[in-house]
Amino acid sequence: MPGLLSKLLPREAGFHDLFVELAENVYAAAQAMVVMLENFSNPAADAEKIKNLEHANDTLTHKLMNKLNRTFITPFDREDIHELASEIDDVLDLTDAAASRLVTYHVEKIRPGVADLARVLVDATREMLAAVRVLEQNDHVLEHCIEINRLENEADRLCRNLIANLFEQEKDPVQIIKWKEIIEVLETATDKCEDVANVVETITLKNA
Amino acid sequence: MPGLLSKLLPREAGFHDLFVELAENVYAAAQAMVVMLENFSNPAADAEKIKNLEHANDTLTHKLMNKLNRTFITPFDREDIHELASEIDDVLDLTDAAASRLVTYHVEKIRPGVADLARVLVDATREMLAAVRVLEQNDHVLEHCIEINRLENEADRLCRNLIANLFEQEKDPVQIIKWKEIIEVLETATDKCEDVANVVETITLKNA
Amino acid sequence: MPGLLSKLLPREAGFHDLFVELAENVYAAAQAMVVMLENFSNPAADAEKIKNLEHANDTLTHKLMNKLNRTFITPFDREDIHELASEIDDVLDLTDAAASRLVTYHVEKIRPGVADLARVLVDATREMLAAVRVLEQNDHVLEHCIEINRLENEADRLCRNLIANLFEQEKDPVQIIKWKEIIEVLETATDKCEDVANVVETITLKNA
Repeated sequence: MPGLLSKLLPREAGFHDLFVELAENVYAAAQAMVVMLENFSNPAADAEKIKNLEHANDTLTHKLMNKLNRTFITPFDREDIHELASEIDDVLDLTDAAASRLVTYHVEKIRPGVADLARVLVDATREMLAAVRVLEQNDHVLEHCIEINRLENEADRLCRNLIANLFEQEKDPVQIIKWKEIIEVLETATDKCEDVANVVETITLKNA
Repeated sequence: MPGLLSKLLPREAGFHDLFVELAENVYAAAQAMVVMLENFSNPAADAEKIKNLEHANDTLTHKLMNKLNRTFITPFDREDIHELASEIDDVLDLTDAAASRLVTYHVEKIRPGVADLARVLVDATREMLAAVRVLEQNDHVLEHCIEINRLENEADRLCRNLIANLFEQEKDPVQIIKWKEIIEVLETATDKCEDVANVVETITLKNA
Repeated sequence: MPGLLSKLLPREAGFHDLFVELAENVYAAAQAMVVMLENFSNPAADAEKIKNLEHANDTLTHKLMNKLNRTFITPFDREDIHELASEIDDVLDLTDAAASRLVTYHVEKIRPGVADLARVLVDATREMLAAVRVLEQNDHVLEHCIEINRLENEADRLCRNLIANLFEQEKDPVQIIKWKEIIEVLETATDKCEDVANVVETITLKNA
């Protein structure tokens, strides 16, 4: 079977490798977030690692977009590829946003259950990376998309419980403001994995 | 005059019926929200009804997107139809988000004026359903879009007043956090009706 | 060299002038925001000025979209132009949202540093206007885009510091809720300038 991205994109352009690299950085950042939340001994250093991955992806995305804009493909395919890159990038932007808030807000102690939410993000980004890796061969792509959807529902459920607990247990409104935002930003990162899965699904179905 | 959606979409595919069903569920959810806010005797049961409509629309949207991706239409038309379905769905997602927060946040008493905001959402979703119903015949579609725009401005005005009152009357910051979010989520649902109206307007004008 | 927008759009349609007018209003609103924050003697009157510019842009955008939908250009180009107009408009919507909150929330005194954030918005909207003005001739367009990206990073850094200071210095949670939102809305206005820069860059590269 001919490669899926190759049908859309000239092989020599190296688009597939750029996409895999982008998704690898997102997965690495999610893993760093779990380490950060589990130890919380040097949050500034952990946040710095995630920030560096975010900068790396900014550069990669810019490179990819430029390559894309200069490549002769149909506008329609271009839009899909553009959206795919942009939404993969969003996942890392939100992971970075959560990490930097943990530092800026001078969080002292991680609330119970928040690391679980980050673990779901690790699972979702691992599936996202897997989907991007097999997109070229169109090999069981949709199975990864279905799993991402399941994980997003799981993150949604966890987020709702975390915020219900926050309102029940925490009496300091300032702590509520800070933690509500951190939890919601982490959950939105998983939402964005689902957006990536939807684009991947669209690309797959259109090129079936 | 030839049907508008039929020009874009093969008639046998049944797209028009799916769109109407989608919009009917959104309208039903907005009505359930008003009932929930007016009585507030069994919020969990009311939220459950809205959640069921949300699940039904998830299934419908997925069906519609699959059908769309497998149908031979121009990419451009496909994008419009895709956006229309996705934005109709967003209105119900936000209605559900408001309903579930009323339960999760253990709200005890509905603040005055909030039901008025939900009534504007009912009006806007009724117009949205009407617009979708006549889109096929392109019969006075734009009149419904104009009315949705008017209702969105009305919701915006109500929302601003509700939040101003909230800050003036409520002294408990935790109540402010909870209610500010519920009010804003409801208002965003009406914003999304306006996004639907904009897509409908675009489809209508392009196919005039 | 042939004009860039003229390649996309019929010259007689007057699209270029509409875009320039749209961007001029955005720039004027950002300047009015700085005046509002620096004096804060009659916030309601200042907010009214910004609101009037926002209404003017709503009318302009509607006119532009109608013209666009009735013009024979490729769907792909149409999408870009549509997105450009819509994102320029978003910058002013957010400026207006910040201004109206300063009034509705009965803010009494402007926090130190907030006017600096608005000054970065003035710089970013000035560059945005410059980019729109030279887009037709494709004359050093990308230099303005790069400068907007730099300003967005600057706004991001200022916003983070302002919110860190807010949590450290302000003890009243209600003040934290109000100011956190006003600062974030202002920062999002600058984010939107970056979105405009990205569309401008895409249009430029595709038509190089």
